[in-house]
Amino acid sequence: MKKHRNITLLGSTGSIGCSTLEVLSHLKDYFSVASLSTNRNIALLEEQILRHHPKVVAVIDEERAAELRRRIGTSTEVLSGEGGLIELAGRDDSDIVLNALVGFSGLRPTLRAIETGKDIAIANKETLVVAGDLVTRMAKERGVRLLPIDSEHSAILQCLQGENIASVTRLIITASGGPFLHHRAEQLESVTVAEALNHPTWKMGPKVTIDSATLMNKGLEVIEACRLFNLSPDKIQVLVHPQSIIHSLVEFDDGSVKAQLGMPDMRLPIQYALMYPERPPAPFRKIDFRTLSSLTFKEPDTRMFRCLPLAFQALRMGGTAPAVLNAANEVAVQLFLEERIPFTAIADIVGRALDSHEPEGNCTLDQIIACDRLTRESVLDSFRLTPPQQLAGTIEQRAAL
Amino acid sequence: MKKHRNITLLGSTGSIGCSTLEVLSHLKDYFSVASLSTNRNIALLEEQILRHHPKVVAVIDEERAAELRRRIGTSTEVLSGEGGLIELAGRDDSDIVLNALVGFSGLRPTLRAIETGKDIAIANKETLVVAGDLVTRMAKERGVRLLPIDSEHSAILQCLQGENIASVTRLIITASGGPFLHHRAEQLESVTVAEALNHPTWKMGPKVTIDSATLMNKGLEVIEACRLFNLSPDKIQVLVHPQSIIHSLVEFDDGSVKAQLGMPDMRLPIQYALMYPERPPAPFRKIDFRTLSSLTFKEPDTRMFRCLPLAFQALRMGGTAPAVLNAANEVAVQLFLEERIPFTAIADIVGRALDSHEPEGNCTLDQIIACDRLTRESVLDSFRLTPPQQLAGTIEQRAAL
Repeated sequence: MKKHRNITLLGSTGSIGCSTLEVLSHLKDYFSVASLSTNRNIALLEEQILRHHPKVVAVIDEERAAELRRRIGTSTEVLSGEGGLIELAGRDDSDIVLNALVGFSGLRPTLRAIETGKDIAIANKETLVVAGDLVTRMAKERGVRLLPIDSEHSAILQCLQGENIASVTRLIITASGGPFLHHRAEQLESVTVAEALNHPTWKMGPKVTIDSATLMNKGLEVIEACRLFNLSPDKIQVLVHPQSIIHSLVEFDDGSVKAQLGMPDMRLPIQYALMYPERPPAPFRKIDFRTLSSLTFKEPDTRMFRCLPLAFQALRMGGTAPAVLNAANEVAVQLFLEERIPFTAIADIVGRALDSHEPEGNCTLDQIIACDRLTRESVLDSFRLTPPQQLAGTIEQRAAL
Repeated sequence: MKKHRNITLLGSTGSIGCSTLEVLSHLKDYFSVASLSTNRNIALLEEQILRHHPKVVAVIDEERAAELRRRIGTSTEVLSGEGGLIELAGRDDSDIVLNALVGFSGLRPTLRAIETGKDIAIANKETLVVAGDLVTRMAKERGVRLLPIDSEHSAILQCLQGENIASVTRLIITASGGPFLHHRAEQLESVTVAEALNHPTWKMGPKVTIDSATLMNKGLEVIEACRLFNLSPDKIQVLVHPQSIIHSLVEFDDGSVKAQLGMPDMRLPIQYALMYPERPPAPFRKIDFRTLSSLTFKEPDTRMFRCLPLAFQALRMGGTAPAVLNAANEVAVQLFLEERIPFTAIADIVGRALDSHEPEGNCTLDQIIACDRLTRESVLDSFRLTPPQQLAGTIEQRAAL
């Protein structure tokens, strides 16, 4: 039996954060909640504080942090701002950090947690996409485990149990295909934010849901898989599997393939990361094979979903290219969510950012952060110069090529 | 890298035997063929001797053994009869025995190989069905490994790598469903031997192919799985999966399921058993996920395919009941292959044998052999007393119940 551990949960009010607290509710024998964090949702954080009794929390938004302090008094310490979040990640009273932050902001807390020798359960894929080399190198140096929470990488980790990574010939990462799997190319341009947010199988936050609709999410997962399992991009294949039951597959030298299956429920990979490699009983719904009539597969349409080949392009470019891919995508998704660009412009913006980038290798954190900032500014600048109509025109021209 | 080993291949001229020799052809760095055996196919055995240079072979049929001795001279020793086969299995110049014999005759050589401390790669399922308790107990005492070759059990073994058997909630054994998956109940009675031998996905010997058509093969595999993995029958489920791509699945306490997939090619599980747990590169065809559009599943129809629930019945009865199931089935399949009974009479004969049996537990080999012989005699006796027409009538009456 595992020893009792204290856990820091970064991003506790998001989708993964809430699922993690549900998992922790039935893993009380194994974990105490040491700390929680939110960007600005202090109402939910307050509820979580009352239920899980952390010693300390962090709220990024300074005003909300002050309001929470007023509300809860001195029973729980409230840190604030980015600095508070990083301090939280480094506190001594925690053994494992689960990073459920969304976007690039997840990087610094991850690095801080690694520096202070904590195991990391990582749902924040940008950390590995943007600074994968740095993060995996530091984790190795500190003897810290990086445990994936994405269902796909969890599936791969499960399939690799007891196997030799040198025997792996292929990782096959499955993709639901998102809400626009059956759309025609010309339909994509006019899809609405509401349509893009309506994911067929997974319930997730808005950024990840849009990334699922463009397949950029799958592209980021491909990069993440390369970093986590130290494999070259040509050993990774993406396969559309609309039922989201097979979460990924691993092919070995002898031609054998192992797959991990489960209901589309993030609590399962969360528990696996927390309890790795043990599997205590869990109350999650199991697959009913009597009603599971068919599992289907098809190749992704990389002409329609251009974000996926763009991720492979960034991987092959190497160095800072994945950071550029990620930064351009974060800005583009935000613009789409604000209904300022059409859906198809996301890939367009990311493609232009990558095409104009000269990647640098062996970067420090500061270089990566500078590259991230520069990319964001450059995307926003070019967007300000190009009104939406013209952007749409550009996309059509690109599609015609 | 594994040390070089000498292998004894029992039943080298059958389907599994020939596949094993193909596998050994590309595993020359790991194995030398110490010995081979055949029931009576000395023409093929002679070819195999010329190619693989065993020091000794066994031929069950005494006349054929004498003929082979005349043909090949003294370069290779030729043992003969059941005794010769058992002697072969116990010879000192071998490190591992692959048992690809068909039927009950595989039991004694397995026990002899275990007694003499050799690892066993086992394709002969009757060994584990008829004397599973005895065989697994002896193997444990002698520190000998029992490695399955059936694709289903190989799949389970692969899925269990790096996992704790105590976390297993269910083994889900897949079944192609055989050639009569889409038949109606009334069509089953008139199927011909040729139709029953025409298996949709696997190329196998006649006994195993008929067992696949009745689903008795799956029933025997359920019993085998209980013995190999020491699990109770209620943790085993059979699932029809006509594509034969997923070879079996394992469900764990946390709701996660692992599956092993591969093309329907026995060489893969044969190599896995021989090289366990390593996976050297193999020239077998790999799954092309781009063309694999759909994997389907359905529950087996246990009213139509009565042999499957009969196997579960035998498991629950325990003791000698699986031996009775197996013996009655071997005789019934032989009668069907000789076109002396209709297809549906196989389940009928097995059902009557089980229903009239009082199982005994903790049996010795002699008791098991006596039970096997008695069952065979009793089935043949009742068959002689009951002409085919009446047998068919009996089946209809049973079906009407």
